[in-house]
Amino acid sequence: MSYFDAASSAPLHPVARQALQASLDEGWADPARLYREGRRARLLLDAAREAAAEAIGCRPDELVFTTSGTRAVHTGIAGTLAGRHRVGRHLIVSAVEHSSVLHSAEMHRTQGGTVSEVPVLRTGAVSPDTYTEALRPDTALACLQSANHEVGTEQPVVAVADACRAAGVPLLVDAAQSLAWGRVEGGWSLLTGSAHKWGGPAGVGLLVVRKGVRYAPQGPADERESGRAPGFENIPGIVAAAASLRAVRAEAAAESARLRELTDRIRARVPELVPDVEVVGDPVRRLPHLLTFSCLYVDGETLLHELDREGFSVSSGSSCTSSTLTPSHVLKAMGVLSEGNVRVSLTLGTPAQDVDRFLDVLPGTVAAVREKLGAPTSAPAVTVQDGSLVVDTLGKRCPIPVIELAKVITGVPIGGTVRVLSDDEAARLDIPAWCEMRNQEYVGEEPTEGGTAYVVRRKAP
Amino acid sequence: MSYFDAASSAPLHPVARQALQASLDEGWADPARLYREGRRARLLLDAAREAAAEAIGCRPDELVFTTSGTRAVHTGIAGTLAGRHRVGRHLIVSAVEHSSVLHSAEMHRTQGGTVSEVPVLRTGAVSPDTYTEALRPDTALACLQSANHEVGTEQPVVAVADACRAAGVPLLVDAAQSLAWGRVEGGWSLLTGSAHKWGGPAGVGLLVVRKGVRYAPQGPADERESGRAPGFENIPGIVAAAASLRAVRAEAAAESARLRELTDRIRARVPELVPDVEVVGDPVRRLPHLLTFSCLYVDGETLLHELDREGFSVSSGSSCTSSTLTPSHVLKAMGVLSEGNVRVSLTLGTPAQDVDRFLDVLPGTVAAVREKLGAPTSAPAVTVQDGSLVVDTLGKRCPIPVIELAKVITGVPIGGTVRVLSDDEAARLDIPAWCEMRNQEYVGEEPTEGGTAYVVRRKAP
Repeated sequence: MSYFDAASSAPLHPVARQALQASLDEGWADPARLYREGRRARLLLDAAREAAAEAIGCRPDELVFTTSGTRAVHTGIAGTLAGRHRVGRHLIVSAVEHSSVLHSAEMHRTQGGTVSEVPVLRTGAVSPDTYTEALRPDTALACLQSANHEVGTEQPVVAVADACRAAGVPLLVDAAQSLAWGRVEGGWSLLTGSAHKWGGPAGVGLLVVRKGVRYAPQGPADERESGRAPGFENIPGIVAAAASLRAVRAEAAAESARLRELTDRIRARVPELVPDVEVVGDPVRRLPHLLTFSCLYVDGETLLHELDREGFSVSSGSSCTSSTLTPSHVLKAMGVLSEGNVRVSLTLGTPAQDVDRFLDVLPGTVAAVREKLGAPTSAPAVTVQDGSLVVDTLGKRCPIPVIELAKVITGVPIGGTVRVLSDDEAARLDIPAWCEMRNQEYVGEEPTEGGTAYVVRRKAP
Repeated sequence: MSYFDAASSAPLHPVARQALQASLDEGWADPARLYREGRRARLLLDAAREAAAEAIGCRPDELVFTTSGTRAVHTGIAGTLAGRHRVGRHLIVSAVEHSSVLHSAEMHRTQGGTVSEVPVLRTGAVSPDTYTEALRPDTALACLQSANHEVGTEQPVVAVADACRAAGVPLLVDAAQSLAWGRVEGGWSLLTGSAHKWGGPAGVGLLVVRKGVRYAPQGPADERESGRAPGFENIPGIVAAAASLRAVRAEAAAESARLRELTDRIRARVPELVPDVEVVGDPVRRLPHLLTFSCLYVDGETLLHELDREGFSVSSGSSCTSSTLTPSHVLKAMGVLSEGNVRVSLTLGTPAQDVDRFLDVLPGTVAAVREKLGAPTSAPAVTVQDGSLVVDTLGKRCPIPVIELAKVITGVPIGGTVRVLSDDEAARLDIPAWCEMRNQEYVGEEPTEGGTAYVVRRKAP
C-alpha cells in the first residue's frame, strides 16, 4: 500500500501521536480556570504556542490556534477586511489559491467588495510584476499561497510581500502546503496553516497576525485565543500539532532532498514511459514531495480507481473525479491539460521502491484505461458542415471530446478545421491544452445549440 | 485531588480515549477521497454520525459535527436567522443562556436585529407563559438551553417547544450541559452540544437542524458537513465523541441517581455547616451532578484558591474570579447572591468520600476567608448624613460592601436607613440579595458621586 496523497492529509506523525496521548491526561481541563487542572492545561497551551511560533518565526502573541486551516483562512481574511474597511474593500487573490481563499473572496464579492484575481503563468506561479499591478489605494488585503496545493509550484512570496509592504497593504500567506518544509520568508503580515498537512492531527490550524495589522474579529464575541478563534481549546490536538511541526522540521532538510530526488525521477520518467503526458508545474521552484501530470485520453476517475486497485492512493484535479464536474481551477488558471490528471504527493519516509513500483505500474494502467475509453460504444456523429468537420460529443464527458478530436484530426487536410461540439466544461480547458501538446492550432470557441463548438485547425506537421 | 468542575470540562472518558487511539490509524485521511484510506475515513465518519444521531434522537442527515459547542451555537443561530430573515429579525433568548448564545444575540442586535431576553424565576427557570408571550409574528428563532450551566436548573423545554411549534417558530436548544444524561425531549427544531462536556475530546461539537427548518449557511462556502461546518473533519475526535456519548448514556441512569444523592447531600448539609449561605437553583428540576451556593462575606477568588489548596477544583460565578469584574449574568438574572459563589459539578464516578471530605473542609475554609476579609486594613468611613448612616466603600471590591453593611446594620434604629456607597458592579446584585437573606428592606439605589448609593432600611427582627 502506497499512500501518495500527503497534500490532502498526511498520516499522523509518531511524535504527534505520542504528544497527543500524553496530553490527553493533562490537557482536558479549561485553561481559563485557576485550579490545578486548569493551570496545567494553560501551561501546555502556552508551551505549544511558543513552539509553534518559533517554528513559524513570529511572536507567540501573534499566533492563535484555529480548528482547521480553512477556518484560519476564513477568519484571517474576514478579520483583516473588516479591520481595514476604511482603506477600501478591494481584495487581491491569486487565481490558484486554495478554495478556502477563493470562497472567502466570493463571499466578499457578494457582500459588495471587489476582488482582483491575479492570473498565473503556465508554471502556476504569479508574476510579481503582475501581482504588484493589482495593488490599488483601496486594497484592504492581498493573499498569496506559499506554494500551490495541486501542482507544487512555489510562489514568489518574498517579492510580492515587498511590493505589498511598499504599498502599505498586508499580505496573507496561506502556507498550508509548505510549513512542513520550513518557515515562509519575507515580510508577510498574516499566515495560515493546517496541522494535518504536516503530520499533526486534524482539528488544528493556525493563524498568525503580525502586530500592527489592523484586525477586527468577526462573528460573535468569544474571549478564547485572543478573541480570534471561538470555542473551547482542543489542547491535546494543539500540543500534538506543535510537537509534530518541530519534529517534521527536524527531518525536513534530509527528507526534502530525498523526496525531491524521487519526485524528480517521476517527473522525468513518466513522459518517457507513458505517451501523451504533460507534467505540469514549475520543474525547479516547487515543493519537494509533490508533482502533477495529466494523461491525454484518460478519464481521471477511472485512472484513480485503477491505481487504487494497484495499491496507490493519489488524487486528481480532473473534472471527472469531482462532484462539481468542473476541472480544477488551478489547472484551468495555468491553461494546462486537466484530463487524466494525477497528483502525487509523497509522505515523509516514502521508500524509493514504492516510487519505482508506481513507475512500473503506471504505463500499463494508463494504457488499459485508454483502451477502455478508446472505443466508446456509441461513436459520436461526424458530419461535414460548411467545409468543416463537425464532431458531436454533446452529452459525453471528458475525456471523450479530446479522444474523438484526436481520432479525426489526421483525416482533416492541413489548414482545414474541426468543430468539436461539447457540453462538458472540461473541454474548454482540455481542447486548447491538447492543441498545444499536439502542435495544432486552437482557433477558438463559439456557442452552439446545447453546448459549445471548439474549433481546431490542422497545422502542417 | 477532587475535580468538581465537570460542567466546565469533563476528563476524557476511557471509551473516548480508546476510540480516539483506535481511529488515529484509520481516520486521518480525507473522507472525500475515493481511495481506500479515504473510504475508511468516510466509514468511520458515517458510523459516528449514526451513533450520535441515535443518541440525540434525530436522523443522521440532520446532524453535523462542528469544532465546538460554541461553534455549533454560533452557526445554528446565524444560519437560522439568515434562512428565516423574510419572516423577520426577532430573536428570543432566555436571560440565563450560555455566553455563546448571548454573544450571538448581541451580534444580531448590532446588525440591526431585535432580541427579547426572557427573564427567569428565582430558580433560574423561565416560565413557559412568559416565554410564550415573547413570541411575535416576526420571530425568526427562539433559543432555550436544556439546563443551566451555572446552577443546574432544567428548563421547561417541552412546553416552550410546543408554544414555539404552535407559533411556527423554530426552537434551538443548547443541550451542552444535559446530553450526557439523556435525550432532549419535545419538539425542538435545532440542538447543539459539546463533546468535552460529556467526556468526549475537546474540538468536537454537534449541530442538529431538523428537516424543514429554513436554514442558510453563513460564511464562505465549504462542502464538508453538508456545508454547515467548514474545515477538514477531525475524524478521530468525532469517533471518540460519538463512542463516549453512547458509553456515558449507558451509565447515565445509575450514575444520575447516585450523583443526585451526593448533590442532594451537599445542598442539604452546606447551609447547616456554613452560616449565611444561599443554595441557588431549582432543588428538584435540576441536573443530577451540579449544584451552586453562595456564601455571604466571602471573596469568590480567595475561596476558590483555598479550596484548590485543599484539593478541590470548583468554579465560581462571582465577579471577583472573572476578568470582566461583573458577576455571572445567570446569578444576576435570578436575583440571587453572587458573592462567595461556588459551583460544584461532579464527574461520573466521583466517590462519595470525596463529597464527604468536601463537606468536612468547606466550613473551615469559608470561615478562614471570612476572617481574613472581616478586618479590612482600612475600615470604610462611616458618617451620618440627613439622618441616614452612610458607609463609603467606594474603591472596595466585593464582598467588602456587604460585609460593611452587615457590620453597621445592628447599630441602625428599626426603620432607619443605611446608604452603602459602592462602585463595584456586584453590589447591585449582592446588596438586595443580602437584604432578602437577612430579612431587611431594600429601598433602592441612587446615583452618587463616583458610584451608586444602595439604600437599606432596617426591619424589626
